[in-house]
Amino acid sequence: MRFSVLILGNSSATPMYERHPTSQVVNHNEQLYLIDCGEGTQMQLTRYGIKSNRINHIFISHLHGDHYLGLVGLISSMHLMGRKTDLHLYGPAPLEEILALNFKYSETELRYNLIFHPTNPTETAVLFESKLLRVESFPLRHRIACTGFRFQEGERPAKLDIDKVAKLQIPPALINGIKWGLDFTDKDGKVHPSSELTTPAPLPRSYAYCSDTVRIPDYLPSIHRANLLYHESTFLHEMKDRAVETFHTTSFEAGEIAKEAEVGHLLLGHYSARYKTKELTLLLDEARSAFPHTDLSVEGKWYEVE
Amino acid sequence: MRFSVLILGNSSATPMYERHPTSQVVNHNEQLYLIDCGEGTQMQLTRYGIKSNRINHIFISHLHGDHYLGLVGLISSMHLMGRKTDLHLYGPAPLEEILALNFKYSETELRYNLIFHPTNPTETAVLFESKLLRVESFPLRHRIACTGFRFQEGERPAKLDIDKVAKLQIPPALINGIKWGLDFTDKDGKVHPSSELTTPAPLPRSYAYCSDTVRIPDYLPSIHRANLLYHESTFLHEMKDRAVETFHTTSFEAGEIAKEAEVGHLLLGHYSARYKTKELTLLLDEARSAFPHTDLSVEGKWYEVE
Repeated sequence: MRFSVLILGNSSATPMYERHPTSQVVNHNEQLYLIDCGEGTQMQLTRYGIKSNRINHIFISHLHGDHYLGLVGLISSMHLMGRKTDLHLYGPAPLEEILALNFKYSETELRYNLIFHPTNPTETAVLFESKLLRVESFPLRHRIACTGFRFQEGERPAKLDIDKVAKLQIPPALINGIKWGLDFTDKDGKVHPSSELTTPAPLPRSYAYCSDTVRIPDYLPSIHRANLLYHESTFLHEMKDRAVETFHTTSFEAGEIAKEAEVGHLLLGHYSARYKTKELTLLLDEARSAFPHTDLSVEGKWYEVE
Repeated sequence: MRFSVLILGNSSATPMYERHPTSQVVNHNEQLYLIDCGEGTQMQLTRYGIKSNRINHIFISHLHGDHYLGLVGLISSMHLMGRKTDLHLYGPAPLEEILALNFKYSETELRYNLIFHPTNPTETAVLFESKLLRVESFPLRHRIACTGFRFQEGERPAKLDIDKVAKLQIPPALINGIKWGLDFTDKDGKVHPSSELTTPAPLPRSYAYCSDTVRIPDYLPSIHRANLLYHESTFLHEMKDRAVETFHTTSFEAGEIAKEAEVGHLLLGHYSARYKTKELTLLLDEARSAFPHTDLSVEGKWYEVE
């Protein structure tokens, strides 16, 4: 079952040429979820071959422009392209007012339902839950209200032993039940336990997203043991004072946070425009000194949650 | 004296990969003016080497997203980059409310003065006037209130006859006055009329911008004899009904309008996403059948007003 993340933008507040404001796509089991929607997100989606109408859930962390200014354009384009499917939007409560004001003056009446779910800036909350996936928000600490997000898989089905299924001539209609733990009774009345027809389910995976925040221990439980953590890393640690002043994190701190939270893999992003693209390896080296399994996020690249 | 226009975006409502929402830069005498500011304008400015802090006047035609959604991002980035100079913004009155709401929730307090000038959607009005340039707005007819803009040069100074200036040893301090019509009295008391020391001033030039509008005769006087006219050309004429329904113009109509207004040169833009880039020549051919001196606007290209 696919679980991966496409980086559309990894720049901090001021975009640079070919470094875009924050946005990313999570693909879980071929369902697409958008996290943050900085200016230009709809063009980035087109560039990387993502059909925006496949996105049914959008999560906005906070109301700094580099995280939401692409939203009115994206929602409008979905409308112009004939979308009919409901779109669920999760974000800070005032976002609804901002959207309404733009649509009022452009006289836009969406042809689909835009269902807004305000996020809770002070407590962890479940935003979305299906059998396969649960999305939670949790408070970060930034200059304004901001939440992170955790995409947590539910229990996964066991893997079938194909040879045994063929040998026992198990009808296709029963397969799914067996993967989820039902036993199979053959035509002679013999019971074959699910556990004998399958290998154990893989562990549920999770992806955690933290941007923007100053380093605080409060959100460590929310990202604990995530297989993949995207964490902002705006500055080098020599800019620690500036990071605290602007409620951001240094790359060394991002590494320490990944270590403390025992995550599997750390992805850095939200780079300050002060660093040229070739200088980003400085951020990477610093984070790796605290947490070796770290990579720089690169726009246009998919990262597996594993 | 330089007078030219850089196209940053020429797509209609739905952007395409490498065709951006509407925005353009007018350079008159090395002063930069921005017309419209679709999503991604700040990135397009960077891409084409325009320092946004050189822009002191921004003109917004109307409040459809593809003409203003890049504004909050651009204004914020100017702030983050330390701008101190006043910025004058001209556009529909509700734009001020939209900006204020965004800045309220992002808790942005601009470090420079943003001076908002609401445009008049029903009458021609002078927005800005200096000795060298006057910018007027005039009503267009679109689904919502919309104005075009005319950049009109003032009287231009006469051109000096360099040889005569050298021969008469005219002091540099007097040169500018002579170009503007003052006579020169030499040390023997002989008067040399300005007209003998100069060749006549070139005619004042003008640039007119019309996007978005359905074809109506009302605005023809406002674009009359513009040296360069940028006119929207959303559809081929076979889509005339759709153009009327959506308050847009066909390319054949744009050509006819250019002819009726006796402009010097027509530039097409605001192309519908239904036309692939290689199909835009169909729009061009159609406009040229009515007005031969027509070109397709191309993003990243400067067009002279001459």
